[in-house]
Amino acid sequence: MIDRLSSNTAIIEPKRGLDEKLALAEKEGRRLNIKLGFDPTAPDLHLGHAVVLKKLRDFQDAGHRLIIIIGDFTASIGDPTGRNKMRPPLSQEEIDANSATYMDQLGLVVDPERVELRRNSEWLGKLDLREVVSLISNLTVAQIMQRDDFKSRFRSDRPIHVHELLYPILQGYDSVIVNADIELGGTDQLFNNLMGRTLQEAFGMSGQVVVTSPLLVGLDGVEKMSKSGGNSIGLTEAPENMYGKVMSIPDRLILEYLRLATDFGEAEQAELRDALAEGTNPMVVKQAIAANVVKQFHSEEAAMGAGSHFERTVQKSNPQESDHAPLQLGKVRESFRTGSPTLLELCDFATTGLSRSYIRRLIRSGGVRVDRDKLIDEHARVDIADGRTLWIGRRRKFILTKNKD
Amino acid sequence: MIDRLSSNTAIIEPKRGLDEKLALAEKEGRRLNIKLGFDPTAPDLHLGHAVVLKKLRDFQDAGHRLIIIIGDFTASIGDPTGRNKMRPPLSQEEIDANSATYMDQLGLVVDPERVELRRNSEWLGKLDLREVVSLISNLTVAQIMQRDDFKSRFRSDRPIHVHELLYPILQGYDSVIVNADIELGGTDQLFNNLMGRTLQEAFGMSGQVVVTSPLLVGLDGVEKMSKSGGNSIGLTEAPENMYGKVMSIPDRLILEYLRLATDFGEAEQAELRDALAEGTNPMVVKQAIAANVVKQFHSEEAAMGAGSHFERTVQKSNPQESDHAPLQLGKVRESFRTGSPTLLELCDFATTGLSRSYIRRLIRSGGVRVDRDKLIDEHARVDIADGRTLWIGRRRKFILTKNKD
Repeated sequence: MIDRLSSNTAIIEPKRGLDEKLALAEKEGRRLNIKLGFDPTAPDLHLGHAVVLKKLRDFQDAGHRLIIIIGDFTASIGDPTGRNKMRPPLSQEEIDANSATYMDQLGLVVDPERVELRRNSEWLGKLDLREVVSLISNLTVAQIMQRDDFKSRFRSDRPIHVHELLYPILQGYDSVIVNADIELGGTDQLFNNLMGRTLQEAFGMSGQVVVTSPLLVGLDGVEKMSKSGGNSIGLTEAPENMYGKVMSIPDRLILEYLRLATDFGEAEQAELRDALAEGTNPMVVKQAIAANVVKQFHSEEAAMGAGSHFERTVQKSNPQESDHAPLQLGKVRESFRTGSPTLLELCDFATTGLSRSYIRRLIRSGGVRVDRDKLIDEHARVDIADGRTLWIGRRRKFILTKNKD
Repeated sequence: MIDRLSSNTAIIEPKRGLDEKLALAEKEGRRLNIKLGFDPTAPDLHLGHAVVLKKLRDFQDAGHRLIIIIGDFTASIGDPTGRNKMRPPLSQEEIDANSATYMDQLGLVVDPERVELRRNSEWLGKLDLREVVSLISNLTVAQIMQRDDFKSRFRSDRPIHVHELLYPILQGYDSVIVNADIELGGTDQLFNNLMGRTLQEAFGMSGQVVVTSPLLVGLDGVEKMSKSGGNSIGLTEAPENMYGKVMSIPDRLILEYLRLATDFGEAEQAELRDALAEGTNPMVVKQAIAANVVKQFHSEEAAMGAGSHFERTVQKSNPQESDHAPLQLGKVRESFRTGSPTLLELCDFATTGLSRSYIRRLIRSGGVRVDRDKLIDEHARVDIADGRTLWIGRRRKFILTKNKD
């Protein structure tokens, strides 16, 4: 279990904390409180968020208690300096609408019925100055200024407004209130989430463990994925867009997307990694990733449809192999002297650049047809006869022909 | 008026601000709101505080409105970190008692009947987190960190707790609430008081002018006077202690005490300065200062008594001149051929090291007697006759004798 829970994580702080919390839960016979914060100013989730959400699901699957904190308090304040046009104060209606949108998207990954939703205005809205002073006295300015963006802004004389120092503390206070055992988030949340640990300890509680997920790089291959960065794939985008966007990532991101964006198991991931290493066309691996991504947030059918669409609209206009490659019967027979080839053997013989593991996946997913029949058993023997058609995927069509000479 | 109001001040910010506020008050036919803050954790006032209080009185004399802010809000919080043992949270009773003590001492300098007393818990106690965030967003961290003690602590890695950044802002907010035109304080309050100006402007108001008074150096001649520094003269100390402590200041502080601790007018100060420059024993000038200080916070009689006490107990045990100096009649007569000398002339002739202006003061204050008669007219002619006794102060006794030869 610990393997599953710590897979695809970046930093766990403290290092042995997760093991210890799990052991404690076991010993006390209780579920752990897993906290995740959500900023209701930005309800549109993308594949980068999904990395964290999948970790949330892992904890849900392991029977722990998910607590989503809606940061409605600060969202309703906006940016009091008025400098940040991206943070206008949100009305209660906007916060409600954004939260509903968020929960819909959350439901694509976790079971929304087993999520506890809390709004931090519930407790932050009641704090008076006396309590604020007492709360923030638990931290020093130097501690807060450790946060990367504060540090760099301070050094380069860019203004940090005093209220900004409060926000990480308030976010940490949320952990005190909900008694979080573990807080999830991206690595960019490490500082903020450790604040929760510090404050819990100041309140005499056991400090939460911070589990961070790696940040997915966006379509540009450079910046972390973000909606404002224009390099994101939204979880609710249409299947065709989603598929096409995954296909557009630079090849060097393939392994990262395979690991972080798909829900392939370790064995399937290994197959695709091997295929790539063995020289399979990277586009083929991307197609597998793209289909998997669409399947996760839409359906298997949508993934198939999006794949076809992509092939029709994008690849058709840029053919890399002949549409109708003839497969000479004589050569096929020569290769398989002992009898009819299996479907896997035939496909492997017919194509170049596809790994056997990829072909195996393609067959299993119904992507290979002989004449009009979808064959999903890779071991099925294929009767070699003149005029038969072999489809490998939507694009590769082979026609068995007699030897020309 | 502006001369009186700007006398004995250190920094006025902005420089022309006081003139402008006075002109405005004149034009609008209104009184200015003069703010002074008081920390109820430390109700014992000393001569250093009196420098500021006298400035307050100057504004009161000029008809303006004094507003004393009791900082009871933060006093009731104390130091939430628990590190500062000097700042335990005060109960309402303690704050009440300290405020009463403070007002009693204030009454030694200003007319307490014409002072408006406000407690900042009245408005700060009502602030909720939302208002706090909005308030503190008016300042940047860099602005707050300009405060000398923050700067030096940050640089030397000594902790500054986050709530400490709020205190100057809250103090500044007091100015917004009471609509202060001018805030008084020591030079050590310059930063805090300018915060009020900044916040008023952020609230769309006209910013207050900050008028600072110089800090009186304490008895040690090194540190600013403070009770905790053990170098202070409390306003309510017994006359003898007060007098004795002034006598103990290093000679190089005489001019500073003359200027800041006495209520001598400019002409009287000039006389004493001249006396010192002309070689009068510094102790004599200190006696004048000590007597004046006792008179301010007690009474003329108390000042006389304290002077006598000092001479009896301190100077008697350490005589610097003969107790019974003979004054030879022949020499006196020789010096005053035209007739009997005036009292001033006789004293001047009898003593060395005393300036005429000092002697004049001594005579006026009743410190000179011939036989048993206190003579207070310096121009009175003294009949020179064998056996008469001349007292100049408590310590110098002269007996008129025939020439020895």
